[in-house]
Amino acid sequence: MIYSRKVNFYETDAQGVVHHSNYPRYFEEARGFYLESIGYPYEKVRNELNVDIILLELSVQYKNPLFFGDTFSIDFYISDMDRFFFVFEYTVRKDNTVIATGKTKHACINRNSRKIVSIPEVLRLK
Amino acid sequence: MIYSRKVNFYETDAQGVVHHSNYPRYFEEARGFYLESIGYPYEKVRNELNVDIILLELSVQYKNPLFFGDTFSIDFYISDMDRFFFVFEYTVRKDNTVIATGKTKHACINRNSRKIVSIPEVLRLK
Amino acid sequence: MIYSRKVNFYETDAQGVVHHSNYPRYFEEARGFYLESIGYPYEKVRNELNVDIILLELSVQYKNPLFFGDTFSIDFYISDMDRFFFVFEYTVRKDNTVIATGKTKHACINRNSRKIVSIPEVLRLK
Amino acid sequence: MIYSRKVNFYETDAQGVVHHSNYPRYFEEARGFYLESIGYPYEKVRNELNVDIILLELSVQYKNPLFFGDTFSIDFYISDMDRFFFVFEYTVRKDNTVIATGKTKHACINRNSRKIVSIPEVLRLK
Repeated sequence: MIYSRKVNFYETDAQGVVHHSNYPRYFEEARGFYLESIGYPYEKVRNELNVDIILLELSVQYKNPLFFGDTFSIDFYISDMDRFFFVFEYTVRKDNTVIATGKTKHACINRNSRKIVSIPEVLRLK
Repeated sequence: MIYSRKVNFYETDAQGVVHHSNYPRYFEEARGFYLESIGYPYEKVRNELNVDIILLELSVQYKNPLFFGDTFSIDFYISDMDRFFFVFEYTVRKDNTVIATGKTKHACINRNSRKIVSIPEVLRLK
Repeated sequence: MIYSRKVNFYETDAQGVVHHSNYPRYFEEARGFYLESIGYPYEKVRNELNVDIILLELSVQYKNPLFFGDTFSIDFYISDMDRFFFVFEYTVRKDNTVIATGKTKHACINRNSRKIVSIPEVLRLK
Repeated sequence: MIYSRKVNFYETDAQGVVHHSNYPRYFEEARGFYLESIGYPYEKVRNELNVDIILLELSVQYKNPLFFGDTFSIDFYISDMDRFFFVFEYTVRKDNTVIATGKTKHACINRNSRKIVSIPEVLRLK
């Protein structure tokens, strides 16, 4: 699955490149795009299933900078899933250059108790 | 009342200056500092009074840029308050240079109904 | 001219709504969209004209909150322009509800001297 | 070395907790605090040594959420350094609860060529 967009000016920093803290946000956008594509946008997950998706682990390898004006794509997929946990892996590219790779591990929690619950069936349809 | 701190690198943009969207955040920090100083930190306002403070109007005049490494101060006060609304005014300075001026107008809402309520007595003690 | 997109989760705050500091960022996105539509994306303005566009004044009136999952549109136009300054006005809507209105005043500066210069001809074609 | 501060409201999200993308920013603040403590604030690194510090790898393990109103501390140190690369490790705590752990790997680049250079002597004094 591929999510793509242009860098916003406010995402750059005084080094003239996209600040590293935006990559976790780009990954979140990609996951939102995924949830929409399976017909379960995140607001529906929250409102209908009373579930929040939380982040347990994050890693990013920064290979090349993104500059203002760049358009990037995120090639991503679910690389692992068991009853409670799922993992996304991401490759950020500009044209054919790898900008960054990343990995995020998640669980679902009940929005009231904030306890981890098993992943709802509807989210299991990759 | 004066709130002061140093610019964070992640607040700069590719023009090499603090991005303008951080000034409303600096003003929010200043208001949080004010609430603490009167013994009513915002989390207490939310939890004990069940009230959220919302922003109705914002204006900023940008006079001079802030650069990475700068320390700035915000000189601010409540310039107006009636039963429902209150206004803060701010002057951001670096040494003796005025960096920006600003104004924010607020009201209190009940956290459940999200309707505007009169300003709680404890917040009226300037 | 209309710019439209969906709220990102990371733009929300603990009140459950879009944090007010994102609106200046949305306005910036809208201006970027405008510059692209006239064939002069901001990176081209910076690289070819050696000009930065700076913000001198900002005002926002917040009428109704945006929630996570909302799609909003920004209806905006250049309401004033002379030799040195130009003003954008914005109306943010969700369906037919006005969420916010805003206004930003800008000038162009030379990227080296950081002095205000007259607005380049190519940016005058509204 | 310990860096500590209070959560800002604008760092929370609609789950009511600090959004995960702020932790890399907190780590950056901690590194800035370290550079100041050795008499080499980052702006001096940039201006006097003509060097930018870049991030090559980031990892965060999120154990417990931070809420609005919380004060957190970051206990951090340089866990590895050779001629070109250095690694920071971080433990974020609230009182005695571990909130998160993290690791960042960095290099120095020449600000003009953007090529990796050996770590300046003055930054080697741990």
